[in-house]
Amino acid sequence: MADDALVVFTPSGRRGRFPLGTDLLAAARSLGVDLDSVCGGRAICGRCRVRIGEGAFAKHGIASAADHVDAEGEAEARCRVRRGIDPPFRLGCQAALRGDVVADVPPEAQVHRQVVRKRPDEREIAVDPVVRLHYVEVEEPDIATPSGDLERLIEALATQWKLGELTALEADSALLPTLQTTLRAGDWKVTAAVREGRRIVALWPGLRERALGAAVDIGSTTVAAHLTDLATGEVVAAAGAMNPQIRFGEDLMSRVSYSMMNPGGAAEMTAAVRACLADLLAEVAAEAGADASDILEVAIVGNPVMHHLFLGIDPVELGGAPFALALADAFEAPARSLDLALAPGAMLYALPCIAGHVGADAAAVALAEGPHLGDEMTLIVDVGTNAEILLGNRGRLLACSSPTGPAFEGAQISAGQRAAPGAIERVRIDRETLEARYRVVGVEAWSDDAGFAEATRRTGITGICGSGIIEAIAEMFLAGILGADGVIDGAMAARSERIEADGRTFSYRLADGPPEIRVTQNDIRAIQLAKGALYAGARLLMDRMAVETVDRVVLAGAFGSHIDPLHAMVLGMIPDCAPDKVTAAGNAAGTGARIALVNRALRREVEELARGIEKVETAVAADFQAHFVAAMAFPHGTAPYPNLARAVRLPEAKASATGDRPRRRRRGGRT
Amino acid sequence: MADDALVVFTPSGRRGRFPLGTDLLAAARSLGVDLDSVCGGRAICGRCRVRIGEGAFAKHGIASAADHVDAEGEAEARCRVRRGIDPPFRLGCQAALRGDVVADVPPEAQVHRQVVRKRPDEREIAVDPVVRLHYVEVEEPDIATPSGDLERLIEALATQWKLGELTALEADSALLPTLQTTLRAGDWKVTAAVREGRRIVALWPGLRERALGAAVDIGSTTVAAHLTDLATGEVVAAAGAMNPQIRFGEDLMSRVSYSMMNPGGAAEMTAAVRACLADLLAEVAAEAGADASDILEVAIVGNPVMHHLFLGIDPVELGGAPFALALADAFEAPARSLDLALAPGAMLYALPCIAGHVGADAAAVALAEGPHLGDEMTLIVDVGTNAEILLGNRGRLLACSSPTGPAFEGAQISAGQRAAPGAIERVRIDRETLEARYRVVGVEAWSDDAGFAEATRRTGITGICGSGIIEAIAEMFLAGILGADGVIDGAMAARSERIEADGRTFSYRLADGPPEIRVTQNDIRAIQLAKGALYAGARLLMDRMAVETVDRVVLAGAFGSHIDPLHAMVLGMIPDCAPDKVTAAGNAAGTGARIALVNRALRREVEELARGIEKVETAVAADFQAHFVAAMAFPHGTAPYPNLARAVRLPEAKASATGDRPRRRRRGGRT
Repeated sequence: MADDALVVFTPSGRRGRFPLGTDLLAAARSLGVDLDSVCGGRAICGRCRVRIGEGAFAKHGIASAADHVDAEGEAEARCRVRRGIDPPFRLGCQAALRGDVVADVPPEAQVHRQVVRKRPDEREIAVDPVVRLHYVEVEEPDIATPSGDLERLIEALATQWKLGELTALEADSALLPTLQTTLRAGDWKVTAAVREGRRIVALWPGLRERALGAAVDIGSTTVAAHLTDLATGEVVAAAGAMNPQIRFGEDLMSRVSYSMMNPGGAAEMTAAVRACLADLLAEVAAEAGADASDILEVAIVGNPVMHHLFLGIDPVELGGAPFALALADAFEAPARSLDLALAPGAMLYALPCIAGHVGADAAAVALAEGPHLGDEMTLIVDVGTNAEILLGNRGRLLACSSPTGPAFEGAQISAGQRAAPGAIERVRIDRETLEARYRVVGVEAWSDDAGFAEATRRTGITGICGSGIIEAIAEMFLAGILGADGVIDGAMAARSERIEADGRTFSYRLADGPPEIRVTQNDIRAIQLAKGALYAGARLLMDRMAVETVDRVVLAGAFGSHIDPLHAMVLGMIPDCAPDKVTAAGNAAGTGARIALVNRALRREVEELARGIEKVETAVAADFQAHFVAAMAFPHGTAPYPNLARAVRLPEAKASATGDRPRRRRRGGRT
Repeated sequence: MADDALVVFTPSGRRGRFPLGTDLLAAARSLGVDLDSVCGGRAICGRCRVRIGEGAFAKHGIASAADHVDAEGEAEARCRVRRGIDPPFRLGCQAALRGDVVADVPPEAQVHRQVVRKRPDEREIAVDPVVRLHYVEVEEPDIATPSGDLERLIEALATQWKLGELTALEADSALLPTLQTTLRAGDWKVTAAVREGRRIVALWPGLRERALGAAVDIGSTTVAAHLTDLATGEVVAAAGAMNPQIRFGEDLMSRVSYSMMNPGGAAEMTAAVRACLADLLAEVAAEAGADASDILEVAIVGNPVMHHLFLGIDPVELGGAPFALALADAFEAPARSLDLALAPGAMLYALPCIAGHVGADAAAVALAEGPHLGDEMTLIVDVGTNAEILLGNRGRLLACSSPTGPAFEGAQISAGQRAAPGAIERVRIDRETLEARYRVVGVEAWSDDAGFAEATRRTGITGICGSGIIEAIAEMFLAGILGADGVIDGAMAARSERIEADGRTFSYRLADGPPEIRVTQNDIRAIQLAKGALYAGARLLMDRMAVETVDRVVLAGAFGSHIDPLHAMVLGMIPDCAPDKVTAAGNAAGTGARIALVNRALRREVEELARGIEKVETAVAADFQAHFVAAMAFPHGTAPYPNLARAVRLPEAKASATGDRPRRRRRGGRT
C-alpha cells in the first residue's frame, strides 16, 4: 500500500502527492492553493471548508473516495455546529489524507474571493488586503528563559504563520500598553492583525474574525465613509456628512482664500475635517456593531485641496500657478498622526494626486473605471466646481481640470439649490404647448401626475438643482425657446405666457410657486460658461490625443448619475457619442477608494497610473480659450453631433438676433 | 600627455586614476575614502578639506605637485574666509585634477571621525549616526510637468546624494505641513535630515550643519539627558532632573505597587516621566542655543520598570514571577507617539532589556564596558535599589539582578540621605585613636583641615550618603570597632567615647553635630543585607560560570564612582580582585546610550549582546540564599581575599560574641 496519496484541488486543478495523514489545509498551502484560514488549522474559524468531490474522481483518474480522508472528530463537529457548515463540506484542517482525493474549494473558502466590482473590462477585482488576521497560540513566559511577551508573540506568528521571513515582524508602539493584558485575557490565544506581513497593528484576545477598514471620499461638500470587511470586500456600513469646512468657504478657491487671509486658517480647516471624519468613522463602526478602534486601515481620496488640508498641508500653493502639489505620490501615515483614534497601529493610505487640479479623486476614478485597461478611447468627466477630465485608453492617458465653477451644482442660478428635498431635478417641456412638467428630489411622481401635490406638500418646491437646470435648459433649447446662442427667443412669448420679459431679457417660468421658479437669461449664461469650460477641457485633451471622437463617455460623481446623457449632449457639455456608450459611474472616486482599500496590488496600479497620466494644464493652454468660446453655443458652435442628431430632433438653426437683448416686440410682463 | 591622473589619499592609502578635471571629493567617493560633505560639493560647508601632500609625493612615486590641481576659484575663497580654512588646505570639491596628487584627509574631514569613548579593549567608537544631513538644491515646480514638491525633494536627494537606491525614500507625515514653506524659504535650497538613508525626518531652509540627538538615562531617581552632535559625537549640553515618579513611590517596587493599587496609576506615571523628559530636552536644547524641535533622534536606557513605564506599559507583570517583560528587544517608535515634540519625524530608540530585572541600562553598561570584547573575566556591578550584575568575557556573558534594597543609596540608614551638599561621603578612622575624619559632598577639605568649618557653614553636616556609610563601616571594621560578624564590639567603648551603648546595642558617633551623625548597629545590619545580596548575586554568576576569581571588576553608576575599591572589598561587596583592576565606570549606562545614539552598527551589537546574555534569576536560584547568608560577614565568611590582604592590614579575626547583643559591660549611654 502506498504511504502517500494524490490530492487534486478544484477549481484550480493543482495537484500533488502527500504523505498519508497530511491535512488538506497543509496540502493546499504547499501547493499554493487559495484556501483561507484565520485560526491556523485549529478547527475554530471554519474558513477552510472543502468539499470532497466524489463525483469528480473518475475525471481526475481516481477510483473511489470512500474513506479517503479521516472521519470527522469532535473539534470539527463542534465547529460545524457553531459555524453552520453542513455536509458534504469538511474542514480542510481536520481532513487528513487516507487515500487519493479531489477537494473542491468553494468561493467562500478562497482568500482572494470577493469581487468588489467588475471594472468595465470585466476584470474582477479580487480581495487582497494589506491587513490580515492571524490567530496564534503564544508561549507563556518562563522565568528560566526570560524573553519579552512581544518576542514570543512574534515568534508564534513566525512559526505558526510563516510571517517575518523576509522582513522582521515588528509591533506598533501604540500596541504596547495593552499587549500584556490582551495576551493574558486570551489565555495566550490571540488574534493579531498584521499589515503587509510585517507589522502588528492590533491584537485581540481569542479568535477574531472580522477585519474592518474604511474607504473615505473627502469631497468639498460631503465626506463619505464606507466601512468594509477587509477579508470579503463587503461594505458593512456607510455614512456621509457635510464637510464642515463649508463654513470657511463654499467652494475650493474660497477655502484657499480663507487660508491666505487668516493665519492658522488652514490648520482650522484641517482640524474641522479630521474631527468630522473621526465622528463619521465612529458612526459607521457603531452601525456595524463595532468600535472605531476596530478599524485597521483607511484609504482616502479627495481633490488636491481636500487631500492637502486633510494631511495638514496649507493649500495656498494650489491657489496660483504653478499650482504646486506638496506631494503627488500615494502617501501612508499612521492614522493617529492624523488625529484619528482607530486601531492602535491603523494606517491611512492616501491615493496619489495627478496634478495641482487633478486629485486623488480623479486617480481613484481612473482606477475604478479602468480606461487604461481597454482599447476604447474613453472620456471620463467628474463634474464639480472643478471638473476633472480624463481621456485615453491602454496606450495613453491624459488628464486636465477645467474651471466649470459652481453653476452645475446649482450655485449662481437664480433659483438654484443643492439636490435636497424640494429641488426640481428633472424637467420635460412639451414642444407644442411649451408647458413644463418636472420631478423633485425624493418624490417619484411627475408634476402632472395625480398625487404630486400631496407628495410635495410637506417640502414644497423650493428651487432647482444642478441636474434640473441642465435638463430645463436642454429642454428649452429642444423646444425652440432659446437659440443655439443661448438667448431666449422673445418671439416665443407670443406662444406661451411662461416666457416673460424680465428686465432687458426674457425668462421661462418653470413652476408657478410660491416661490416661482424661473430660468433666467443669466442662469443660461452661467450654465453656458460652465458647459463651455467642461467641453473645452475635454476638447483640449482630444486635440492633444489627436482624436476627433471618443468611443465612450463616463459621467462620474453624484451629479453625473442624475444627468440624462442626451440632455448632456444637447447642452454640449460632452462631445458627441453613441447614447448607449454614455454611462454614469456614480461615486467612482469612492469606488476607487474601496478598491485601493482591499487590494494592495491595485494600490501599486493606481500609483503607476497616476505617475503615467500626462497632465494638461488648461490655465496655460492657448487653445483652451478658443475651444471655450466656441463651446458656448448649443450644442456646440462647430463640433458635429451625428449621434445626438440621430437620437433627438434638434431644432433648426435660427439666426441669432442681437446677443443678449430681447427683441423689440416686448410684451407687458411683470416688472 | 595622459588624459587621466593618479590620486593617492592618505592616511587610507587608497588610490586610483581619474580623468583630468575630476574633483577630489568625487574621487574620494569613488574610492570609498571617508571624506565628509554636507553641501554635496558646492563649496558651502567646508567639510571636505584636504591637504595636497607635496612632501609625500616621492614616497608615492609622484614626481612633483606643482599645478596638479586647479587653482582656487571665487567660491572656494569665500568658503575659506567663512569657515576659517587656511592653506595648505583645499576644498576637495573644488580641487579638480590636473595631474597626479597625494591628498591627505585630516581627522576633522573624516565622516567617521570622532571617538565617543575608548572602550576597555581600546577599540575606538566611531561616529556613524542613523540620521545624517544632506544639503540639496531642489528643482522648482513647473506647470508643464506637474509633480509634488516632495517628489522633487526626493529626486534631488536621489540624484545629488544617491539616496533611496535600495529602499524608496519617504517622508514622515509630520513633515508635510511645513514642507512647502521650507522649500520656498530656502529658495529651493534646503538641508534634509535623512534617517537610515530612507526617511526624511526634518527639513530646514538653506544649509544646516548641526544634527542633534539626545541620549537619555531614565533612572528611578533621576532622569539625565545628554544632547549630542550626531556628526561629531560631542556632548553639547547635559542636564538632569528628579524623576517625578518619586511622588508615586521611592523605589521600583513601590511604583509597581502604586500601579497595582490605583487604576490608571501606570498611565499617571507614564505621563509624569514623559513630561519630565520633554522639559529636560527643551532645557538641554536651549542650553545649546537650539530648540527641542531640532532634536532628530533619542536613544534611551532604563531599568525594566522605568523602560516599560516610559513606553506606556503597566509594569505590573514585573512585580511577580515570572517577571515577564512586555518586550525585551530594542524598540523604535516615533518620538511624538511618546508625547515628545521634537523634530517632525524624530525617532526614539530604546535599548534592549535583558530580563525582567536586568534592563536596558544593564545592556547599555555592557555596550559601554565591552566585557564581550576581551578575554578578561569581567564582573560589572551597577549598584542601585536593585543591583544589576554582569559576568563574563568574549566567550560567554551572564547577568542577574540582586535585591540589594535601598541601603546603598542611604535609605534605611539612621542618618542616611541622598548624596547632596551636607552629606558625609568619605570617612577615615584612625586605628589608634578611633577618631574619624570625613569629607562632605561639595567641599574639598577634610573635617580636620583648616577651613572645613567655614566651608560647611552654609549647608551644615546633615547626614551620610551611600558611599559615606560604606566607607564608615569598612573603616570601623579595619579599626577593629566591629568584628567579622558585623557586631560593634562594646569592649572598644573603653578606648573611645565615640563608641556608645545605644539601647541593647552600640553605635559609633561619627560627627558631633548638631545633628549627631551615628553609625548604628541597625545601619550595619542594613548594609550587611545589601552587600550580602550583592556578593551573592556575583557569586551565583561565578558558580554558573565555574570560576573562582575574576580578572576585573567594574563599578558602574554614580554610586560606584564614589566608592573606594578597597573599601568595597573590605566590606565584601565584591569578590577579591587586584585593586588596580577595580575601576569605576561612572554613568556607564548613560555612556552606552550615547554610543547607541551615534553609532548604528553598535545598536545591532547591543541587540545581539542582550539576546546572547544568559540570564540567571536569583529569585529561584537555590544557592543564592546560601551565598547570601555566607556573605553577611566582613569581608566574607568563606571566600578568600588574597589581593585585599596584600593591600591593607585586615584586623585579626575575633570570635564573635552573642550576635547583635552588646557585651555585658554596658556603659551608661544615652537612652
